[in-house]
Amino acid sequence: MMRPAELVEERFWERREDFVIMNPAATLPVLVENDGPPICGAWPVSEYLDETRGFALAEHRLLPPNADQRAEVRRLTEWFLVQFDAEVTGFLVEEKVIKRERARAGGDGAPDSGLLRAARSNIRMHMRYVDHLIETRRWLAGDRLTYADLAAAAAISVADFMGEVPWPEAEESKDWYARVKSRPAFRALLADKVRSITPPAHYSDLDF
Amino acid sequence: MMRPAELVEERFWERREDFVIMNPAATLPVLVENDGPPICGAWPVSEYLDETRGFALAEHRLLPPNADQRAEVRRLTEWFLVQFDAEVTGFLVEEKVIKRERARAGGDGAPDSGLLRAARSNIRMHMRYVDHLIETRRWLAGDRLTYADLAAAAAISVADFMGEVPWPEAEESKDWYARVKSRPAFRALLADKVRSITPPAHYSDLDF
Repeated sequence: MMRPAELVEERFWERREDFVIMNPAATLPVLVENDGPPICGAWPVSEYLDETRGFALAEHRLLPPNADQRAEVRRLTEWFLVQFDAEVTGFLVEEKVIKRERARAGGDGAPDSGLLRAARSNIRMHMRYVDHLIETRRWLAGDRLTYADLAAAAAISVADFMGEVPWPEAEESKDWYARVKSRPAFRALLADKVRSITPPAHYSDLDF
Repeated sequence: MMRPAELVEERFWERREDFVIMNPAATLPVLVENDGPPICGAWPVSEYLDETRGFALAEHRLLPPNADQRAEVRRLTEWFLVQFDAEVTGFLVEEKVIKRERARAGGDGAPDSGLLRAARSNIRMHMRYVDHLIETRRWLAGDRLTYADLAAAAAISVADFMGEVPWPEAEESKDWYARVKSRPAFRALLADKVRSITPPAHYSDLDF
């Protein structure tokens, strides 16, 4: 019943016509299942998967059954999908990846050191918050793995790929992150690469 | 059973200590119910209300029962909460309201005409999309009023308050917006005011 999803790479910024018809916002992720309509966006996809598979997953369900706990999972998922991106990874990707690509194409490729400093200061605040949560919880939103852990670890992995996570200051978070990294569902992501960036040696190391 | 919510004004940008303890992201909305934990953010609040009241609302439920339809409601809700804000109202509020307040305080208050032009060009695209949807649907996400209508109308009302919605080009949307405005739940919002801005005469007119 639970067939693995088939991943399709979409260069969303190219706004391919068939893709924009599928999702007029031209954002990712988009989930297409059988002949159903495309499910567009991380919030809709996560809720859809829970609604169509959650009950059968029992204690492996990525949204817990209680309404208060579900709200906590959604709060933290949104935190890492939206706020962490706006304050950390958005700057890092723009300054360290997109500008480098632009320089290859002959444009201005100098990263803005003020924005990089802001991102580095912001990530320390976020990692302290993860530390704070994980001091009293086994997983980010409580006693089980949820969407919050996947969203947070995915966001943090982007910064980690660029060597921008201050791990020595984030001992508690490091242990939690190592546990998420070693999940079979997460491990495959660590093989993804970005042209022109070499991740630090610990990046895909499960026991870093 | 359905007591009306008591609204509390929170100047979230002041980061009041008790408020940040309640919601460390210091964003709105936050829903507090009895002795339960605070429910933080539009996505968690809307899902929480559906989970705790939705079933009893029957055909007035703001998320429809079918998983595909729910995904469509969430896609459009996110569109107006996130994308419309990033491309339209974010610029308008910054350039027309926040900068004016800053000028009062003796700072630089000149709106950036390039950003205002971008917002005005972007809103035409968004209104065309609303027109397109409403050509084949009674409400934005289908045949019933949902969170998508409330999110879209709330976002559009911010632009309308500043006289920035090109209504003459958006006939279909205008009829839909008039229907949302006249709902009892929505009408009260139209009395809200922003210091230093006078809305256009049609703003709170239900049959504009």
